[in-house]
Amino acid sequence: MADAAPPAETPVTAVPPVEGEAGEAGPSKKALKKAEAKAKKEAEKAARQKAAAEREAVAKAASQGEDNAKDSYGPETQETIEKLPAALEINLKTLGDEHIGKTVELRAWIQNSRLQGAKMAFVELREEGNWTIQGVIAANADGTISKQMVKFVGAINLESFVRVQATVEKPLEPVKSCKVSNYELHLTKVFVIAAAPQMLGMNLAVANRPIANFTDEEAPVEEGVEKLSIAPADELAIPTATMLTHLDNIVMHKRSAVQQAIADIRIEVKHLYRSYLRDRGFKEFEPPCLIGAASEGGANVFRLPYFEKEAFLAQSPQFYKQIEVAGGRKRVFSIGPVFRAENSNTPRHMTEFTGMDLEMEINKHYHEALDIIEGVLLHILRSLPERCAEEIAIVRSVYPSEDFLLPEPGKEVRLTFAEGQKLLREEGPEEFRNVSDFEDMSTPQEKALGALVRKKFGTDFYVLDKFPSEARPFYAKEDPENPAVTNAFDCFLRNQEVLSGGQRINDPVELEKRIRSKGVDPESPGIKEYIDIFRQAGVPPHAGAGFGLDRVVAWFLNLPSVHLAAYFPRTPKRLSP
Amino acid sequence: MADAAPPAETPVTAVPPVEGEAGEAGPSKKALKKAEAKAKKEAEKAARQKAAAEREAVAKAASQGEDNAKDSYGPETQETIEKLPAALEINLKTLGDEHIGKTVELRAWIQNSRLQGAKMAFVELREEGNWTIQGVIAANADGTISKQMVKFVGAINLESFVRVQATVEKPLEPVKSCKVSNYELHLTKVFVIAAAPQMLGMNLAVANRPIANFTDEEAPVEEGVEKLSIAPADELAIPTATMLTHLDNIVMHKRSAVQQAIADIRIEVKHLYRSYLRDRGFKEFEPPCLIGAASEGGANVFRLPYFEKEAFLAQSPQFYKQIEVAGGRKRVFSIGPVFRAENSNTPRHMTEFTGMDLEMEINKHYHEALDIIEGVLLHILRSLPERCAEEIAIVRSVYPSEDFLLPEPGKEVRLTFAEGQKLLREEGPEEFRNVSDFEDMSTPQEKALGALVRKKFGTDFYVLDKFPSEARPFYAKEDPENPAVTNAFDCFLRNQEVLSGGQRINDPVELEKRIRSKGVDPESPGIKEYIDIFRQAGVPPHAGAGFGLDRVVAWFLNLPSVHLAAYFPRTPKRLSP
Repeated sequence: MADAAPPAETPVTAVPPVEGEAGEAGPSKKALKKAEAKAKKEAEKAARQKAAAEREAVAKAASQGEDNAKDSYGPETQETIEKLPAALEINLKTLGDEHIGKTVELRAWIQNSRLQGAKMAFVELREEGNWTIQGVIAANADGTISKQMVKFVGAINLESFVRVQATVEKPLEPVKSCKVSNYELHLTKVFVIAAAPQMLGMNLAVANRPIANFTDEEAPVEEGVEKLSIAPADELAIPTATMLTHLDNIVMHKRSAVQQAIADIRIEVKHLYRSYLRDRGFKEFEPPCLIGAASEGGANVFRLPYFEKEAFLAQSPQFYKQIEVAGGRKRVFSIGPVFRAENSNTPRHMTEFTGMDLEMEINKHYHEALDIIEGVLLHILRSLPERCAEEIAIVRSVYPSEDFLLPEPGKEVRLTFAEGQKLLREEGPEEFRNVSDFEDMSTPQEKALGALVRKKFGTDFYVLDKFPSEARPFYAKEDPENPAVTNAFDCFLRNQEVLSGGQRINDPVELEKRIRSKGVDPESPGIKEYIDIFRQAGVPPHAGAGFGLDRVVAWFLNLPSVHLAAYFPRTPKRLSP
Repeated sequence: MADAAPPAETPVTAVPPVEGEAGEAGPSKKALKKAEAKAKKEAEKAARQKAAAEREAVAKAASQGEDNAKDSYGPETQETIEKLPAALEINLKTLGDEHIGKTVELRAWIQNSRLQGAKMAFVELREEGNWTIQGVIAANADGTISKQMVKFVGAINLESFVRVQATVEKPLEPVKSCKVSNYELHLTKVFVIAAAPQMLGMNLAVANRPIANFTDEEAPVEEGVEKLSIAPADELAIPTATMLTHLDNIVMHKRSAVQQAIADIRIEVKHLYRSYLRDRGFKEFEPPCLIGAASEGGANVFRLPYFEKEAFLAQSPQFYKQIEVAGGRKRVFSIGPVFRAENSNTPRHMTEFTGMDLEMEINKHYHEALDIIEGVLLHILRSLPERCAEEIAIVRSVYPSEDFLLPEPGKEVRLTFAEGQKLLREEGPEEFRNVSDFEDMSTPQEKALGALVRKKFGTDFYVLDKFPSEARPFYAKEDPENPAVTNAFDCFLRNQEVLSGGQRINDPVELEKRIRSKGVDPESPGIKEYIDIFRQAGVPPHAGAGFGLDRVVAWFLNLPSVHLAAYFPRTPKRLSP
C-alpha cells in the first residue's frame, strides 16, 4: 500500500514553479490574460463545488444500510471517548520499529484524502509542522471495517482534526508523500474531533507556496475563496496567494510547514539571544510601552488620549535601559514591542515589531560592549544552521536562499565608517566615487558596501564603527580623539543594517551641550526628563544596542518580507487579525 | 580599622522603625505636627547646605600645597586611565583569602563616607545590590597618600561612581556595616568616574525604607528634595518617602537593595515560568499590542488614531493565543505587556502590566491544562524560596511577610466553586451564610475563603474550579454534564485571585450560540473575527490561562503595592519616567 498515487486534490509538497514554463507562450495581451484568468477562476469554482457535492453524496450513501463498524467512526462525543478502548498514544516524531504491529492512538489533521474504489481510502495525517504519515483504511470481510466507514473517512473535510486508532505497519515501499515514510497506519477507529468547513479559504498546499505579492492594500470584504487563483490539478502549478489572502486565512497560513519553521527559528533566535546574555550576567527587564513624552523627537510616534492627558507609544526602550544602568544594574537586556507610526508600506516596515535591546556598563572602552553585541549576533548566526537545520531547509524549499557566510572565529570584520567609505570610493560602483566620510550612508551605498565586503572578506555579517557625528542621535558619545565621529556602530546582515549601537553620553553637562548643538531645547518634554536621569546620581559610562527580531529572522533567511517573520504583522493598512 | 563607628550621614542598613516609639508622644494636634514638620524640614535643609559647604571647603583646602599623591586621585580622564598601573579587577562576590595583601581594582559607588581627623577617611563602596565593602585611606609618612588625597576621598559626593585600587586586608574585627565584612580595602588610588550631585533627591537609606504611601497624586513639579522629610541623624528614625518621591528619584529608587532584590525575584519568576513550559513543549510567541477591534467588549480599552483608522491596545492575548493553537501550534505561551484603561487608583492596579499567558490543545479533559497551570505556579512558588533566599530576606527586611505556605506534593488543594461556597456558608463569617453557588465571588468572599483554606489545608495557594457560567466570559466552555457551571478555574495566592483560566469553546456553532445567549451580537467588530477563526478549519479543544507577573511577585512577597514589583509602574496619573 505504499504506492499511493499523488492525492487527487491538493499535493502535499509545494514544488517551486519550473522557471521559464510560464513564459513559454510569449507575452500575451492584458485583456486576454484577464479573460483567461476569469475563465480559469470560474472553472476552478465549478470544480470545487463539484468536489464538495461528491463528498456530500458519498457521506450520504455511507449513512445507509447495515453497518457493523458504526461504533468505530463518526463525530467524537463524550460517549465515543468513553467507549474507546485504551491504546498507546504516540507522536510521529518518536514512532519507531517497536510500534510495528501494535495498536496506537494519534490525534492529527486530515491533510489529504483519496478514495480508491468503494473499499479503500488513503489519508495523510499531519500532527504538527510537516510531520505527516499515511493512513490506510480498507473494508474487511467481517465488516468491522465497513464500506460505510471507508466512505466516511474518505469524505472527511480536509483540515479537520481527528482521533484515530490504528495498527502500525511497515509499507512495502517508503511513502514518499509523507515525512514519516517508513511506517503507515492501518486505521481501525476514526473520530472527527473538530470538523473543518467543506471549502477552505486557502488550502495547505497554497499556504505552503511563496507569497505572490505583499501589496498592502485592504482586502475586499466577503470575497473569501474568490481571491485565490487556483489552477487545475496540476502538481507543478499549485497557485500562490497574496499576503492579504494569507492573513485573511491566518489559520491555514499558520498551519503551513514554512510558517511553523519560520516561527521555530524565531523562537530559537530569542532563546540564543537570551541565554547568551544571561550567561554573561545580563538581567532581563521590561521597559514600558506607554510613555508620557515622545523622547526621540516626536516624529513617527503614536499618540493616544490617556485619561486627562496624552500618552505615546515607545519607539524604543533607549531611555529605560539607560535608567536601569543608572539605577545600578550593570548589564540589562529587554525583548519587547516597539512602535513606529511611520506610513511606510514596504516589505521592510511594520508599525509594531519586537525590539531586542541591551545596555551595559563599560570599564575602559566601548568596544567591551561591541564585543558582546557582535558576540551575541555571531552566536545566533553560527548556532542557527546547526540547531535549526531542518527548519531552514523547509524555509528554503519555499524561499530559496544561499548559505549565510560567516567569518571564521578571530577573523570578524570591523571597519570604521571612513574605511568603508574608502572601500566604496576605490572599489565600489562608479556612482560612489565621491562618497563622504562625514555623511550618513544611503541604502544603495549600504548594499554596495555589503557586496564589496562579501567579496573581499567572505562574510555576510560585519560591523561598521565610528559613524560620523552628523549621522547619530544626540545621546551618541563623540570619540574623544576625533569629535567628528562617534563611538557608535552598526551591524550589517546580508547587506542590510540590522543593528545600531554605541556608547552614550553619561555626563549631564556634556549631554546638555550636545543636545543644544543639535538644535534641540534641553528643556523640551522628554528631553529634560532624559538629562535629569544623569543629574540624579553619578552614572557610569555605558554602551548598548538595539535591533529588530523580525528583521534578523527575515534577513538571515532572506525572506522577501519582514512580515513573514512576524506572528501578526502590523502595517499602516493592516491591524487584523 | 574594623571598629568603624556608624557612618555619620546615612546608615547603610535600613532598620525597621521600632514599633510604638513613634507613638510615645501621644496624639498631637494637626497644626502642631505641621509646624513641627516645617521646622524639621528647614533644619534639615540647613544641615544639608552646611554639610555641602564643608565638603567644598575641604576639597578646596586639599587643592592647595605640595602633593606627592596628586597622580593617585581626582576625576578620571583618558590620561589617568592610561597612567594607571595594571591591577587585578575584582568583584565583591568573589573576593577571597587569596586576594589578601594583593593590589586589586574595583569600580563602585561611594555609598557612605566619613573623615576621621585630617589623616584618615572611611568609605563604603557598593558594587551592586547590597554588596558593600569598607574602604580605608590614611595619609602616610612618605606622602604617597597625602592629607589632600584623604580629604578628597572623604569629600566625594555620595553615589558618585569611582574606580579604586587598593590592598586587600583582613580587618581586626568584621565590618558590621558592610556585607563583605571579612575584608577591607586600603585605598591607594581613587578616581571619580562619574560624580553625583552634592545633594541627592533621595538618599540610599531612604530608598531602602518602606514606601510611606502610595497615593497616586501628581507630584508638584520642581520641588525636588523638599518633598522629603529627612529626620536628624538618628539611626532608628530614617525617614520614609512616598511612592511619588521614589518615582521622581527613580535612579536612587532602583539603586536600593530592596528594589534590586524585587527585580531579581521578578526575573526568576519569568525564568522559572519559561523554562518549565519550554521543557513541556510550549512555544513562546509574541501577540500584538495594536489591534483593530476591541475584542473583549470595548470597556476599559485604550484607543488611538491609527493612520485613517482607529486602533486599540490589547487587553489580553486571548484571541491571539487561540489563533496560534488553531494554526497548529500544540502548546504556546507568551510574556508581554497588556493594557487596561481603567481609572482605578489603587495599589492593586496598573494601566500597563506584564501578562503571562499560555494555551494548549487538550486531549480528553481540560484538567490536562489545569495540571500544567497549577504545576507551573507551584514550580515557581516552590523554587523561589530556595533560588532567591537572599533576595527574599532583603525584601523582608523592608517589607516583612510570613513564609508562603505550600501544600506537599500530592496534597494540592482544588475545590469546586460550589465546594468553596459551601465552606464559606458553613465555616465562614456570619455575612457569608447565604452565598450562592451561581454568583461570582466578591473580594471579601475571596479573602474569607482564602483564610478558611489556609486554616484547613495549610496552604496559601489553591485552585477554585467550575465557576458558574454567569461569572465567565462568552468563550468559556460549559461543563457538558452541568451547563450551569463552566470548565473554568481561578488560582489564588495569599487569598487573592491571581490567575484565570479554563477550556474555551472550539466549535463555531456552539460559540455563536453562547455569544448570543450573553446578549452580544456575533456580527459585532472583534467578535465576528473571533468566531471566524473557528470557522476557518477544525480547531482542536484547548484550554489555557493568563496571569499578571507583577501581581505574582507582589503577592508572593506580600508587598504593599503591585507598583513595587513593576519596573516603571503605569497608573492613570503617572506615565513617567
